[in-house]
Amino acid sequence: MNAPHVADRPIGVAVVGAGYWGPNLVRNFQSSAEFRLRWLCDLDEDRARRVLGGYSTVQTTADLATVLADDEVEAVAIATPAGTHLTVAMAALQAGKHVLVEKPLAAGQADGRRLVAEAERRGLSLMCDHTYCYTPAVLRIREILHAGELGELHYLDSVRINLGLVQRDIDVMWDLAPHDLSILDFILPPGVHPVAVAAHGADGIGAGRACVAYLTLRLNTGAIAHIHVNWLSPVKIRTTIVGGSKRTLVWDDLNPSQRLAIFDRGVDVSTSEELGAEQRRDMLVSYRSGDMVAPALTEREALRTMVEEYARSIRTGTPALTDGRAGLRVLGILEAASRSLTEGGRMIELDLDEKGVA
Amino acid sequence: MNAPHVADRPIGVAVVGAGYWGPNLVRNFQSSAEFRLRWLCDLDEDRARRVLGGYSTVQTTADLATVLADDEVEAVAIATPAGTHLTVAMAALQAGKHVLVEKPLAAGQADGRRLVAEAERRGLSLMCDHTYCYTPAVLRIREILHAGELGELHYLDSVRINLGLVQRDIDVMWDLAPHDLSILDFILPPGVHPVAVAAHGADGIGAGRACVAYLTLRLNTGAIAHIHVNWLSPVKIRTTIVGGSKRTLVWDDLNPSQRLAIFDRGVDVSTSEELGAEQRRDMLVSYRSGDMVAPALTEREALRTMVEEYARSIRTGTPALTDGRAGLRVLGILEAASRSLTEGGRMIELDLDEKGVA
Amino acid sequence: MNAPHVADRPIGVAVVGAGYWGPNLVRNFQSSAEFRLRWLCDLDEDRARRVLGGYSTVQTTADLATVLADDEVEAVAIATPAGTHLTVAMAALQAGKHVLVEKPLAAGQADGRRLVAEAERRGLSLMCDHTYCYTPAVLRIREILHAGELGELHYLDSVRINLGLVQRDIDVMWDLAPHDLSILDFILPPGVHPVAVAAHGADGIGAGRACVAYLTLRLNTGAIAHIHVNWLSPVKIRTTIVGGSKRTLVWDDLNPSQRLAIFDRGVDVSTSEELGAEQRRDMLVSYRSGDMVAPALTEREALRTMVEEYARSIRTGTPALTDGRAGLRVLGILEAASRSLTEGGRMIELDLDEKGVA
Amino acid sequence: MNAPHVADRPIGVAVVGAGYWGPNLVRNFQSSAEFRLRWLCDLDEDRARRVLGGYSTVQTTADLATVLADDEVEAVAIATPAGTHLTVAMAALQAGKHVLVEKPLAAGQADGRRLVAEAERRGLSLMCDHTYCYTPAVLRIREILHAGELGELHYLDSVRINLGLVQRDIDVMWDLAPHDLSILDFILPPGVHPVAVAAHGADGIGAGRACVAYLTLRLNTGAIAHIHVNWLSPVKIRTTIVGGSKRTLVWDDLNPSQRLAIFDRGVDVSTSEELGAEQRRDMLVSYRSGDMVAPALTEREALRTMVEEYARSIRTGTPALTDGRAGLRVLGILEAASRSLTEGGRMIELDLDEKGVA
Repeated sequence: MNAPHVADRPIGVAVVGAGYWGPNLVRNFQSSAEFRLRWLCDLDEDRARRVLGGYSTVQTTADLATVLADDEVEAVAIATPAGTHLTVAMAALQAGKHVLVEKPLAAGQADGRRLVAEAERRGLSLMCDHTYCYTPAVLRIREILHAGELGELHYLDSVRINLGLVQRDIDVMWDLAPHDLSILDFILPPGVHPVAVAAHGADGIGAGRACVAYLTLRLNTGAIAHIHVNWLSPVKIRTTIVGGSKRTLVWDDLNPSQRLAIFDRGVDVSTSEELGAEQRRDMLVSYRSGDMVAPALTEREALRTMVEEYARSIRTGTPALTDGRAGLRVLGILEAASRSLTEGGRMIELDLDEKGVA
Repeated sequence: MNAPHVADRPIGVAVVGAGYWGPNLVRNFQSSAEFRLRWLCDLDEDRARRVLGGYSTVQTTADLATVLADDEVEAVAIATPAGTHLTVAMAALQAGKHVLVEKPLAAGQADGRRLVAEAERRGLSLMCDHTYCYTPAVLRIREILHAGELGELHYLDSVRINLGLVQRDIDVMWDLAPHDLSILDFILPPGVHPVAVAAHGADGIGAGRACVAYLTLRLNTGAIAHIHVNWLSPVKIRTTIVGGSKRTLVWDDLNPSQRLAIFDRGVDVSTSEELGAEQRRDMLVSYRSGDMVAPALTEREALRTMVEEYARSIRTGTPALTDGRAGLRVLGILEAASRSLTEGGRMIELDLDEKGVA
Repeated sequence: MNAPHVADRPIGVAVVGAGYWGPNLVRNFQSSAEFRLRWLCDLDEDRARRVLGGYSTVQTTADLATVLADDEVEAVAIATPAGTHLTVAMAALQAGKHVLVEKPLAAGQADGRRLVAEAERRGLSLMCDHTYCYTPAVLRIREILHAGELGELHYLDSVRINLGLVQRDIDVMWDLAPHDLSILDFILPPGVHPVAVAAHGADGIGAGRACVAYLTLRLNTGAIAHIHVNWLSPVKIRTTIVGGSKRTLVWDDLNPSQRLAIFDRGVDVSTSEELGAEQRRDMLVSYRSGDMVAPALTEREALRTMVEEYARSIRTGTPALTDGRAGLRVLGILEAASRSLTEGGRMIELDLDEKGVA
Repeated sequence: MNAPHVADRPIGVAVVGAGYWGPNLVRNFQSSAEFRLRWLCDLDEDRARRVLGGYSTVQTTADLATVLADDEVEAVAIATPAGTHLTVAMAALQAGKHVLVEKPLAAGQADGRRLVAEAERRGLSLMCDHTYCYTPAVLRIREILHAGELGELHYLDSVRINLGLVQRDIDVMWDLAPHDLSILDFILPPGVHPVAVAAHGADGIGAGRACVAYLTLRLNTGAIAHIHVNWLSPVKIRTTIVGGSKRTLVWDDLNPSQRLAIFDRGVDVSTSEELGAEQRRDMLVSYRSGDMVAPALTEREALRTMVEEYARSIRTGTPALTDGRAGLRVLGILEAASRSLTEGGRMIELDLDEKGVA
């Protein structure tokens, strides 16, 4: 896709945005041999300076143009508010830079489409920092689902609740659900994808936007996916259950000693082809009560793997695992969910592309 | 309401149904000084015999009429399939017996209304065995909510999932959600009640009925209640979070050493009356990060307390805490949720009575 | 060993002692087809009557002689205070009855030896109710260790702490450690056994006896076993770790969804025979970080299995899995541990029998 | 004690040792406004360079003398193997630098005493990096114990087990127990201290040193403290229970959402002065079953607080909370425990100083 990066020297990179997420990018670009961090850019240059600390040789600036004018900057990583993604990312692409954008890709699907089109036209890598996809747990879940180890997918249930910062501009759905939706997009096996979404929410505290939200997605296979996001919960839960016909997987991201558990337990239904609807009612149900296996996972910071994938994408000219199109699919679901929220929870069909994919 | 039970001798009682739940009723009536268990009745009398064991003086019969003809039987407890509740309970009421019915009260709201009317006309106690309401945890939650200790209710989230028996006649919603709905009905403070419900479900295994379901309820206060019931989960979760403006309560029924936890953590929003919509957007949000208190709860079998409440209701002629009307309210929500399920998750307004209560 | 029980009709049994443990025996003998419960005997006959409840056909008596004179009583189960075990059990054996005794077998090793000798002389089954040995978890652990699945045993660590009843006559060690010691005796593979014990304790509350105690056992293989028992802990912990050269097993009895976990994680040391002491210091240590497997266990009440084992022992004339000799070995360790406690924690060698077994 | 640091400019500091712990010190000195990090010194200068990364202005050297000759270096932080502590720390003290040493203070008590004497003679701060003491949890526990909120201390039980790196030079006791012993030293209220220690250990894997160890300490009040350290456990446990006459505290360092729990549960014994020994046997025991409170703790990196305490000690000329004498007390217990280990677990009296403190 992209123009491959020819030389094998480190890729010059600049981070834009020194707020909540930027420092993590700074740290990971600094510790990667693939990159050479040249700039940390923030409208508040003092903040950028403070993030780097008093011992760093990395340059700061409040001026994006300075960064984009630097020929040694080949790649940009953007960690500014979502509303600015279109402007900043478009400028970077137009300056011929590869672009990594913090989630969500843009403030809306239309903006996202313009970025994807620009990057594809220029052969540049446009990558979404869907960080969770690069955790060892999610990478393993993707392998397991793609290999069909769970059998046919029956349901996916994700809970991501915590006492969270009430955002000024976006509701809890836009704040937290991108994590779950990008993970869903990442792990679903080829041919399986959402086709519709409904959302319910509540604004208990009078914040002017939903602080608790529930999303229900229908997949093209008839399976269901459900996401609970919540800013008001004093207990922190980050658990995803993926139920399949053969096995069921539980990912508890807050249990470092046992993040993944694969249960060989479930319900079997005899599905003799000869059975008519009548007999089906008298179906034979049996229960498996097998072992649970918690696979060993290597602890590794997700951002480190994400940064390596960015380098790989740039160097090979192939799309990143979480490329701009993945970001677009997530935006499509978020926009439909927002519509559902305003329409009393109505199930909204997703806008599918030529391949029938959201 | 009822004709009070005059004498202070034990109340003669008969249990009808020796299947899954009946033995628990048998055991609890036997150990209560308030009751004298006279009969265990089941169409399969051998099963009734086996439930009693080889050392019991309690009589068995396959004939309900025999039980109802026994003048020393003043009360009946019914643990037969929901489809038979109307017939059995109506016969018992018409024979002048007080009636306890396993949840759900009846197969539908119409049937339930007939039972409630009959019991009220005759001044008999009609009680629903909403067992969970009599656990020490739920009794305490009710106290806490009625006393306003959580402040204004923002949301309630209940998860009740497990590898459950796939029922032949009812879906997972009718099997499990009565627990959550009866608890909700029990704990909500006066004046707060559901007004609408939406439901989504999936039948992954081709059972012909939903094996996974999500219910979303809107309360008259704007708060949201959400219930996740699931027969296909290899992990068992029974956790309810009740979020309020002052405190949030977490009930984890599978954690005997800490079933209840009350968190003095949350989000405060300054709500100066002078603030216009404009300023509201610039609202001041602050966060409380206080202690958590896990109140000491005495362990006590819920059925024991339920049986005592049945005796109290009979002896005093006053409705039980979970009377027939409570059972009716639960049925109303279940029927609306079933309609929502067939209509793609549409939000269904509940049929409210003269007091505006579902 | 014993005179086999010839007939295949139920074995007539009497329970002696209607205190804390007796009711559990009553319930399990009643529900077993192998036994016919004829008597519940207690010095306080009213208590016996209350335990049986108002619906039972089982007879009560305060007179042990009446029970022992009943020819249809072939077996006796004793749940009286430890100080009375010698008298009651000896009388029963001398009346020709098989005997099951609640742990510990007797108040001391000398008493226990007399009971074992009497039972063996008469060919009667003398069984210790080491209940935990009959839990599905411990039965599985025994299988795993006997099959060598953990490799060579390195250490065993058991914690059994809780807010417990401070006993009047015995310290926490005699109250709780019999559980751990009987389990240890039960699961250790043939040829592996304790050879010495040291104990430390404290009596924080001035109870006149240890309320917290630590036992350290040396096994003949050089492995170590350690037991922590505690009456004063507000948190309840019942966890045993069995570390082996190949795998390590963790039994958490308070986690019903995952009582057993077998970790394929550990430390490997290259042990080339050619290595001298010098090179050993430069040994190669490597670490395995494999999967964890939580085997599916069927839930089954331990007492039910124990009661069946008692029947098997009686019917076949062979010793029970936890026979009088097992009880003796546990007593031997307890007495040595008590001596260590009074001698400042000195390591006390165990009195080994002709086979070198404690 | 020390010559106070007069100026209010940052304190020039050098870190010696770029191995496992050094990078953490580097990071924390860099982010503290109290210090100016001038050097990272390691015999392997490349390693030091790699630790700093490619963007740092901090200098590296392999030569300690260069560091000590730098007049702008006022303080040194030593993270080299314990065997080198005496040499490196002594050189630094003799060069007039304040010294922070990673635990343990030195390879033995004699070495430690020389360092303490040198520092006191020169009025320099000698601080032990007992990191755990500076966690929010341990600081709070210290407050609670010093304020007497638990009542009289009955027992302390600490478990610190994990699959740990088998060290070449030291056993598991010297590797891990310094954490528990330094915490014990830190939290015990004035006047309460250990007087004797016994230790048991095992070397299952043939490592030539104990990989599993149990330490039992007697305190001057009769209370008991027990420590379990283990390199071979595939499960990680870091739990400390502190049992008192009024309340009991549980610190679970692996449960970030509830690290501290204070239970108002326990056993009360009536201790009327008139009671003789006879009556004491008939003592009245009662049980409290009160609430549990999990106090809100602010998450804060312990090393950040430790670094601030180092600055405070230097600037004020007063001993650090974990000064050299605290390090000495820990060494005294470790040496006695080692002796106990070689003498079969014999209880070893601690060498107490003029104040009767170990």
